[in-house]
Amino acid sequence: SRSYSITLLPGDGIGPEVVSVAKDVLVLAGSYEGIKFRFREMPVGGAALDGVGVPLPEETLEVAKVSDAVLLGAIGGYKWDGNEKHLKPETGLLQLRAGLGVFANLRPAAVLPQLIDSSTLKKEVAEGVDIMVVRELTGGIYFGNPRGFGHNEKGEDIGFNTEVYSVSEVDRIARVAFEVARKRQGKLCSVDKANVLEASMLWRRRVTALATEFPDVQLSHMYVDNAAMQLVRDPKQFDTIVTNNIFGDILSDEASMLTGSIGMLPSASVSESGPGLFEPIHGSAPDIAGQDKANPLATVLSAAMLLRYGLGEENAAKIIEKAVIETLDRGFRTGDIFSTGMVLVGCRKMGEEVLKS
Amino acid sequence: SRSYSITLLPGDGIGPEVVSVAKDVLVLAGSYEGIKFRFREMPVGGAALDGVGVPLPEETLEVAKVSDAVLLGAIGGYKWDGNEKHLKPETGLLQLRAGLGVFANLRPAAVLPQLIDSSTLKKEVAEGVDIMVVRELTGGIYFGNPRGFGHNEKGEDIGFNTEVYSVSEVDRIARVAFEVARKRQGKLCSVDKANVLEASMLWRRRVTALATEFPDVQLSHMYVDNAAMQLVRDPKQFDTIVTNNIFGDILSDEASMLTGSIGMLPSASVSESGPGLFEPIHGSAPDIAGQDKANPLATVLSAAMLLRYGLGEENAAKIIEKAVIETLDRGFRTGDIFSTGMVLVGCRKMGEEVLKS
Ligand SMILES: CC(C)[C@H](C(=O)O)[C@@H](O)C(=O)O
Ligand SMILES: CC(C)[C@H](C(=O)O)[C@@H](O)C(=O)O
Repeated sequence: SRSYSITLLPGDGIGPEVVSVAKDVLVLAGSYEGIKFRFREMPVGGAALDGVGVPLPEETLEVAKVSDAVLLGAIGGYKWDGNEKHLKPETGLLQLRAGLGVFANLRPAAVLPQLIDSSTLKKEVAEGVDIMVVRELTGGIYFGNPRGFGHNEKGEDIGFNTEVYSVSEVDRIARVAFEVARKRQGKLCSVDKANVLEASMLWRRRVTALATEFPDVQLSHMYVDNAAMQLVRDPKQFDTIVTNNIFGDILSDEASMLTGSIGMLPSASVSESGPGLFEPIHGSAPDIAGQDKANPLATVLSAAMLLRYGLGEENAAKIIEKAVIETLDRGFRTGDIFSTGMVLVGCRKMGEEVLKS
Repeated sequence: SRSYSITLLPGDGIGPEVVSVAKDVLVLAGSYEGIKFRFREMPVGGAALDGVGVPLPEETLEVAKVSDAVLLGAIGGYKWDGNEKHLKPETGLLQLRAGLGVFANLRPAAVLPQLIDSSTLKKEVAEGVDIMVVRELTGGIYFGNPRGFGHNEKGEDIGFNTEVYSVSEVDRIARVAFEVARKRQGKLCSVDKANVLEASMLWRRRVTALATEFPDVQLSHMYVDNAAMQLVRDPKQFDTIVTNNIFGDILSDEASMLTGSIGMLPSASVSESGPGLFEPIHGSAPDIAGQDKANPLATVLSAAMLLRYGLGEENAAKIIEKAVIETLDRGFRTGDIFSTGMVLVGCRKMGEEVLKS
């Protein structure tokens, strides 16, 4: 029987509650497929700051690196908002991404028929939306040097960052995106700001060059401002989107919200080899933490992505996804996706219903 | 009687058609208020590239600089898409903004009751949306140095840009935004990525410091990814938004599209002194250029902004805005905002109806 080691990083706020549910679901789905898991739980984010004074303890990164996959809950909270940069929970997350080298962030945003009413879009616009955003995650302005504070010629204080991409950085994320598009509807839209930024001109040049390796994928290019518009105007025009770190941060959140149910959306961050990082796209929601109100389904679906993209266990992934859909079909809803006529449940109960499905 | 010199920059695509209508409306509205205009038309963008080989001829900038206000149509088209950077129509627009020093870009996005059905948002979400995005326009990653192409330590090709803000750059745009918010609902949301970028940390620090000068304005801060989400989730929560050049590019386009009628939306770009630049937010629409199909109302409303923010002629601005609303109430619609039961008209006819209103 197959056996995998999984690093659990519950993190802050609702993180521990949702990771606990996802762990149980993972164990059960695995058992149907003869898969065993060894779990190891490690601190990250605010929890690590409070415990050992840094947002990503060395040991956490070491354990994560030698495991087969990493499941993360959520990071951050008001408590640490005033912290200096190197003591912010978010910095721990960025260090984790860089440390694992997970340069490809896959963020699906699909409208589920069961939850279409939660979308603020008109039904005919929202219906059938199924977008995958492939975001570059370990480069660009998030990590570019030089960065920091200094003075300009006039002696004034300035703050600055560098947006930078190299050919190999663009090539590897573009390849992942072409492969993803190939397994979906075969349409890839590369989003940049090549009418203004040199970093985007290089991006567009490389993506265009790689297209010859993927003749079965239909490639288009769009400026980021137009993409932000088109997502609202007609989201169905998109299949797979590939873009840089900061544009991906913005557009994937916009795309997520089109579905109306960000409590449902998972993400996968992967490298060429080595363990992937799987996490819900929602935040730590400190206001409802510890109250058994959180929606665990985004983390449960992240566990499904972990099985698919992290371990290659497609069958077990499908078991989880089917169980989530069935649970929704049976009418169970947490507060964030509740509508009249449905059964309002908490985080644990939602988990139990998924386990029954 | 007051007399003003106006530089007209028709530009490319539908630019000439819509500027011609706006000019007539400006003349008529001015005549009611005893205002005279002297117009001078100059080439910019693709039109200037074809004519004199550069996207912003020196003479165009000189004429614009000594005039009282500049009215621009649209810039760009497929024809010049493959051009090198310094020969792109867009480069002419960026040079014009920098040359005039118009650092504050005001972009209203309000849902008109007459056009609410054009929005892809549910009616109850779209109703009453009235947002003003104040975008920094002459700094940040659009203009930051160093920029260009080069090689990294591994000898690979790279493309890079610099996001940079100085204290005085943030202070002056923040002051404009606080003043704008004060005249609106008194709510200002500053959008940044201060959890990751140093340029944003400086931005947030200065905006926070300036808030003490505007105790009557309620200031909040939001990360750009969350703002992209919240605009879709609940756009009514926003009154005035202030943000940097690139985030403003993205978010103002997203906000515009929420209204469903970008053919209606004007913009104003102003400096501390010197002429402002007024232009519709839509592009040059080369596919319908010269066919008398364009919606001239965004340019007509830009002329109203020119009167208000450029010349301080509030009464004449109101005359134009009232005439546009009346024309819509009388049922006239261009193709982009047409719905059944309305009267479909072309660009010129729409202009004539505004003149009658
Ligand atoms: C918390 C923050 C640093 C992070 C990011 O900007 O990448 C988050 O917004 C995300 O998208 O995962
Ligand atoms: C054409 C382009 C350079 C410009 C920009 O990015 O500023 C446009 O998108 C705008 O918003 O006016």
